[in-house]
Amino acid sequence: MSLSNIKVVLVGPLYGGNVGSICRAMANTGLSNLTLVAPALTLNYAEARMMAVAADSILEGRKEVSTLEEAVGDCGLVMGTTARLGLYRQHARTPREWAPRILESAAANQVALVFGRENWGLTNEEIAICTNMIQIPSSEEYPSLNLAQAGMVCFYELFVAAGVFEAVGEKTPECPTRTREHMFTMWREMLLAIGFMDEEKADHMMLGLRRIFCRAPLTEDDVRILMGVARQTMWKARQETRT
Amino acid sequence: MSLSNIKVVLVGPLYGGNVGSICRAMANTGLSNLTLVAPALTLNYAEARMMAVAADSILEGRKEVSTLEEAVGDCGLVMGTTARLGLYRQHARTPREWAPRILESAAANQVALVFGRENWGLTNEEIAICTNMIQIPSSEEYPSLNLAQAGMVCFYELFVAAGVFEAVGEKTPECPTRTREHMFTMWREMLLAIGFMDEEKADHMMLGLRRIFCRAPLTEDDVRILMGVARQTMWKARQETRT
Repeated sequence: MSLSNIKVVLVGPLYGGNVGSICRAMANTGLSNLTLVAPALTLNYAEARMMAVAADSILEGRKEVSTLEEAVGDCGLVMGTTARLGLYRQHARTPREWAPRILESAAANQVALVFGRENWGLTNEEIAICTNMIQIPSSEEYPSLNLAQAGMVCFYELFVAAGVFEAVGEKTPECPTRTREHMFTMWREMLLAIGFMDEEKADHMMLGLRRIFCRAPLTEDDVRILMGVARQTMWKARQETRT
Repeated sequence: MSLSNIKVVLVGPLYGGNVGSICRAMANTGLSNLTLVAPALTLNYAEARMMAVAADSILEGRKEVSTLEEAVGDCGLVMGTTARLGLYRQHARTPREWAPRILESAAANQVALVFGRENWGLTNEEIAICTNMIQIPSSEEYPSLNLAQAGMVCFYELFVAAGVFEAVGEKTPECPTRTREHMFTMWREMLLAIGFMDEEKADHMMLGLRRIFCRAPLTEDDVRILMGVARQTMWKARQETRT
């Protein structure tokens, strides 16, 4: 499985909260391999554990090395991330554009996703080691993402591209016309029975109702509920007439 | 512009750090309208300001109300978010699937993105007020995202779908064959001149070099650099021969 060949490399992280949030985001998206390059001596590991929540095993299992070269020595693709553009960064592409290439490489090779310091990003020397650069789409007015948020977006794009996640979707199929028309017939009778419309206006009003109910797909469950409403209303209307 | 009609609604947030991170993520993705529904009395606003960084104007400009109904009273679409699936949540779709629908609606209407409490999400009563539900793709083993991370993913998907962001891309066009072939001719001469290969092996070796240089697109700038290398090497090789 490709995702297990992807390692997350944080260069010189300063804040424990960010490191912990990265761990949780990794667990949320099927990643588990974390390397810290020369983390700040003041990095608060208690805060990291707090933000990692149930992903503390990723935090505890982290590797620590002193240079980026050591961290990515075994990797083919080395994807740097950048908020700024400029020298050495102009060939950056978005995480969505890179995701298929990263997964293709990770099917057979170690791949690194490299994130720079909170206050300074990656140095030009560190960018030189990266084979390619990722730029996360963001507003021109405030382009700089929090470290853990930048991680989340990249991991999320890889997770979605990996196709592991399957949306639940509707459990019942869309209702076929035969049943839907039966429901509309019942509603027509019901709306006449309660005096909501008279025979003359009925066709016009039913077109309005058809528009409401057919604007989005109707499932068999939906139509069963609508039939139940009509059936019960008719029953109640008959009761009222009798009393 | 659609994004300005989208309001972010946090129901009962507990932690200032998350509220601040949400503000920064909003600023990163062109959103600015924040409403808090009954925030925790213990919510740490100093922490919120710290995490909002340059997005403190969104934090200061927030509205506070006591119920979700008040918060979304003026909205057409009310999109709830959920990590769990189950009762009332089975019709959830991913943020990427919803993004076009949300932007279409936000072109002419107020739209709400609703996020539940950190520890408990949204109640069934709150979910009932939502017109639709968003589920963020995440690992089965740890599906629950941090509040601000869930926000980031939703905002990011809307920002990308809005098409505001334009990738920088290459500044020079891809190199046309004529120029590229000229470069290969120079390299052939150069590699013969330095004795890297002899005439007999040259064609075979050049196929290897063509494969390396053509594996990814070559721009005119790239080819100019490669021509420069060949030219300088030939010059140096000639100097050496003379001495």
